[in-house]
Amino acid sequence: MDTNEGIGSRLWAIPEGYMPGSSTGPDEMKSHETICFLNTSNKDAKVEITAYFADREPAGPYEVEVGARRTVHLWVNDLEDPEPIPTDTDYATVIRSNVPIVVQHTRLDSRQAANALLSTMAYPVREAGGS
Amino acid sequence: MDTNEGIGSRLWAIPEGYMPGSSTGPDEMKSHETICFLNTSNKDAKVEITAYFADREPAGPYEVEVGARRTVHLWVNDLEDPEPIPTDTDYATVIRSNVPIVVQHTRLDSRQAANALLSTMAYPVREAGGS
Amino acid sequence: MDTNEGIGSRLWAIPEGYMPGSSTGPDEMKSHETICFLNTSNKDAKVEITAYFADREPAGPYEVEVGARRTVHLWVNDLEDPEPIPTDTDYATVIRSNVPIVVQHTRLDSRQAANALLSTMAYPVREAGGS
Amino acid sequence: MDTNEGIGSRLWAIPEGYMPGSSTGPDEMKSHETICFLNTSNKDAKVEITAYFADREPAGPYEVEVGARRTVHLWVNDLEDPEPIPTDTDYATVIRSNVPIVVQHTRLDSRQAANALLSTMAYPVREAGGS
Repeated sequence: MDTNEGIGSRLWAIPEGYMPGSSTGPDEMKSHETICFLNTSNKDAKVEITAYFADREPAGPYEVEVGARRTVHLWVNDLEDPEPIPTDTDYATVIRSNVPIVVQHTRLDSRQAANALLSTMAYPVREAGGS
Repeated sequence: MDTNEGIGSRLWAIPEGYMPGSSTGPDEMKSHETICFLNTSNKDAKVEITAYFADREPAGPYEVEVGARRTVHLWVNDLEDPEPIPTDTDYATVIRSNVPIVVQHTRLDSRQAANALLSTMAYPVREAGGS
Repeated sequence: MDTNEGIGSRLWAIPEGYMPGSSTGPDEMKSHETICFLNTSNKDAKVEITAYFADREPAGPYEVEVGARRTVHLWVNDLEDPEPIPTDTDYATVIRSNVPIVVQHTRLDSRQAANALLSTMAYPVREAGGS
Repeated sequence: MDTNEGIGSRLWAIPEGYMPGSSTGPDEMKSHETICFLNTSNKDAKVEITAYFADREPAGPYEVEVGARRTVHLWVNDLEDPEPIPTDTDYATVIRSNVPIVVQHTRLDSRQAANALLSTMAYPVREAGGS
């Protein structure tokens, strides 16, 4: 398989999302969530994130560009347009891309002394020509 | 793929389940397990959870509704009907839905000072028309 | 899909295995690894685990029975026959079953004060009739 | 399926990579990332890792051999040829092998007192004859 055309899927989902509103330790240990994108293709990826909530309609799309042959580890805490995603709130995300990408989700939780981590590959929706 | 029809699978499994019976810290840091559901479809999802154990027949079904275009992060600790799932006990879950959903499982373990986290996408059972 | 015939795969792999040789805290917080099996079928599952190492031939098979409609969360630390799997040693596992099962792998690491956790679904090898 | 021919895929991707530049505790608790390879086949695996970054062209390939019926848990921190992968830097990896293998990714983060762990199966790219 030629990775020049990009590996992965154009549609991903992450049911678990929750940014703790408090932190312990220095700035780099701030509680946060990261969505990690890998674009192995030779074309820049236009990525759109939609955020789902428990008690309101979805927000978005949030637009992210992932350059050809680049990885972007996006802090969800930094999203502002069209609106910030609130902390201490259950949410979920769906990610769409115009080229195949691979997506992973990580949380650092430093509410208590010493941090905790979780990570999982996002759920790839299968499509014709994807994987 | 049109997410209006819902992305994911109608059948998921999570072999690992264990709710620690003790906790350290404030209420929000209580040891717990969460099953996170994402329903991207335009139809409310009727979800049924069956719990499996090491030494007895399965319990359930536990009924959960996940509204159209909503996410629900269910605390397993809060399930009561038809019976609570005991803490400090090995269990596993199977999740069925009438529409495709995506499912992720997370544990927060605060038995010792500072919490630990784990998370993994649940196992999607493949079906015709699902992914 | 009828879960009476069992959901999952008959063949799974877990590349990451490592049981820390030291622990902090009470017995229940002992550093350990768990392989979690879920058998939703109506037939007892005969499971065989093979352990792979960095510098020697594989060990096993280790035999485990997972009853019909039961989950078993096996402590790898407790395996003795045909030989214990050493702590502080890189290993990996392949799991075979005569009926479809679902497999997840978890580590609790309490070498330092406060424990850390990791978990991931095992890698399901696709087969005809499985998922 | 005959595991003598190897189980898994020849192409894997891991979007999340980040090696913390500081650590707490003894040497074995050094912050690090591990890529775990399992080669169940009867043929030595020639593995090539390519590292992707946020703001420069990819580095590599890094060559690793995983013997027949062996597992290798590679510390990314130890890679030197063609160039070290810097700490405190977002990166991602693509792994290619001449025989099917299974790949998992783990981080130990000991920047704060007590360590945190994350792990996930890598993303297997589907190919004819693979799984």
